[in-house]
Amino acid sequence: MNQKIKELSRWMKDQGIDLALLTSPANILYLTRFHCDPHERLLALFVPAEEEPFLICPLLEVQRAKEAGWKGEVLGYGDAEDPWDRIRERWNRAAGTIAVEKEHLTFGRAERLLALNPDATLVSVEEKMYELRAIKDEEEIRRLAKAARLADYGVEIGIDALREGCTEIEIVAEIEYELKKKGVQGMSFSTTVLFGENTALPHGTPGSRKLSPGDLVLFDLGVIVDGYCSDITRTVAYRQIDDQCRQIYETVLRAQQAALGRCSPGIPISEVDQAARKVITAAGYGDRFPHRVGHGLGLEVHEFPSMSASNDQTLREGMTFTVEPGIYIPGKGGVRIEDDVVITRDGCEILTKFPKELRVVE
Amino acid sequence: MNQKIKELSRWMKDQGIDLALLTSPANILYLTRFHCDPHERLLALFVPAEEEPFLICPLLEVQRAKEAGWKGEVLGYGDAEDPWDRIRERWNRAAGTIAVEKEHLTFGRAERLLALNPDATLVSVEEKMYELRAIKDEEEIRRLAKAARLADYGVEIGIDALREGCTEIEIVAEIEYELKKKGVQGMSFSTTVLFGENTALPHGTPGSRKLSPGDLVLFDLGVIVDGYCSDITRTVAYRQIDDQCRQIYETVLRAQQAALGRCSPGIPISEVDQAARKVITAAGYGDRFPHRVGHGLGLEVHEFPSMSASNDQTLREGMTFTVEPGIYIPGKGGVRIEDDVVITRDGCEILTKFPKELRVVE
Repeated sequence: MNQKIKELSRWMKDQGIDLALLTSPANILYLTRFHCDPHERLLALFVPAEEEPFLICPLLEVQRAKEAGWKGEVLGYGDAEDPWDRIRERWNRAAGTIAVEKEHLTFGRAERLLALNPDATLVSVEEKMYELRAIKDEEEIRRLAKAARLADYGVEIGIDALREGCTEIEIVAEIEYELKKKGVQGMSFSTTVLFGENTALPHGTPGSRKLSPGDLVLFDLGVIVDGYCSDITRTVAYRQIDDQCRQIYETVLRAQQAALGRCSPGIPISEVDQAARKVITAAGYGDRFPHRVGHGLGLEVHEFPSMSASNDQTLREGMTFTVEPGIYIPGKGGVRIEDDVVITRDGCEILTKFPKELRVVE
Repeated sequence: MNQKIKELSRWMKDQGIDLALLTSPANILYLTRFHCDPHERLLALFVPAEEEPFLICPLLEVQRAKEAGWKGEVLGYGDAEDPWDRIRERWNRAAGTIAVEKEHLTFGRAERLLALNPDATLVSVEEKMYELRAIKDEEEIRRLAKAARLADYGVEIGIDALREGCTEIEIVAEIEYELKKKGVQGMSFSTTVLFGENTALPHGTPGSRKLSPGDLVLFDLGVIVDGYCSDITRTVAYRQIDDQCRQIYETVLRAQQAALGRCSPGIPISEVDQAARKVITAAGYGDRFPHRVGHGLGLEVHEFPSMSASNDQTLREGMTFTVEPGIYIPGKGGVRIEDDVVITRDGCEILTKFPKELRVVE
């Protein structure tokens, strides 16, 4: 039983839970290192409080589960079999309390589970999983770092592809094409490239806006490596930059550095947000920074912890998250600078390495 | 109330169902023409048996729902609101039987629904929705036809990109890049390009295999247009082709034409599969055609009807599906030819138009 499952089991004992049933690919990857998207087929990890855990998956995936490093039992089922028949043979205790992913387990599967355990109460395991997942181990950080390096490369491709008159969507296509050629299997979200006044939209969508001298260009992208996500934002100027945009850029960069300076174990998360917000407010742009300073990052591109001014949790070694202040001036443009950060024993390491000094692309 | 919702309501009355609750983006798109992926947020269509239906969605999406053509009521909820509070205000009848998507509705949401209707029994609406969705209307066929034309274009791009020594994955990247530049927002599944002996794998994954003269090249791809999917397969030869591959190609093409010849209203689906299988078996390759002749196509790339030898349903006007026989010789190569077909009043129309005569690419 690995360390992560041991921690889950400890919590189960504390809570009087007899069985935990995990069904989302992300939580199963977290606990087993096995990444599988079974589509409509059943993939589930059973973690009984008093016995060894076992995984149930399509027969075709059994070998991959073992190769991925899962040392526990695996039950495979064929396409013509009902996986719940296999489960009934294997698990015939009467569980009183079962922890499930209430926002993932379907009602149809909950019915099948309750048919095997008619007196069981289903409680939620999701908050506990998020709490466990917030602290990454070495292998997870290795994957996050690899994803971050590929995100750096994505920005580099995008900058190199800029030509007067090109469109936002062409640059998106270029970035994803080159990353795919590097073997990237998926982006962690829809790649965003915005030009000029569109950079003022914190959730703008790339379109057919053409690039002109004097435009700001904003890249926001990330990739998935072995299940783990990266998320980087860089903003550059094309050919020239006016004084206001330059001032905004320098303000956001100072705000980001101030926030990064608070990233150490024991610091309340709210202070990270406040450190950035203080710099931006002092420069007169307090009302132009309408979002939290960042979000946790891992198997999902948004996970725990939320890096907001109202989060009074403290940072702990192994937490990974983004730090991404921004200033947005409607009709003119916006600047956001985002890095992926991991909390170390005595500070932090920045996983995304693409340079941040103001760059005017020729 | 549109025609599709009327048909659902009729079924509900027959079955004594008081309320249907749809939650999957595909079924909601089908009934409302509104396409929305709300991620973890709630999107739901309430269809009461005795009242007008209403949609609940994030506030940000309300306008888009109306623009998409949904004429019924829309309840929007803000990020800080609990959508179930809005639902409770709007829906306070005691429903005895509620039809839900048991394989989509999460257990957590079922609990919220049952908290509002404590005595309700939840039954499945999924089979009925699949049955309704199997017959497409004019607008749906228009979208499927547009998706099919873009799939044709994808094959054309792929063939044009072939160069000696290029890899499978490079061709995949090229196809997706050019389709994205045409404004395609998503592929309906992972684009498949296989060279040489890899074409013998019905579910092979593109890799770094390099193209050589004499290779067969298999393209299997599709795009999503306004929610609707296409799916095409074409096989070509690169520079030269040996006699056995030529014979396999001609056999598959005749098998496909035989199957297409049976595509008319009133014909049992099994006959379509059998028509292709008969040609392939007569040529001595019966055991090299290990899959059904096709699958239904619509909001999902695999849906009703299943075009298999064991399906005794009959074809009806408006059904859309693929016809894709194949022959696979391990270690040597395979050929599959796939079109998207819609059943018309007195026959069928083939939506994918890319030529099918054997092509040897120079």
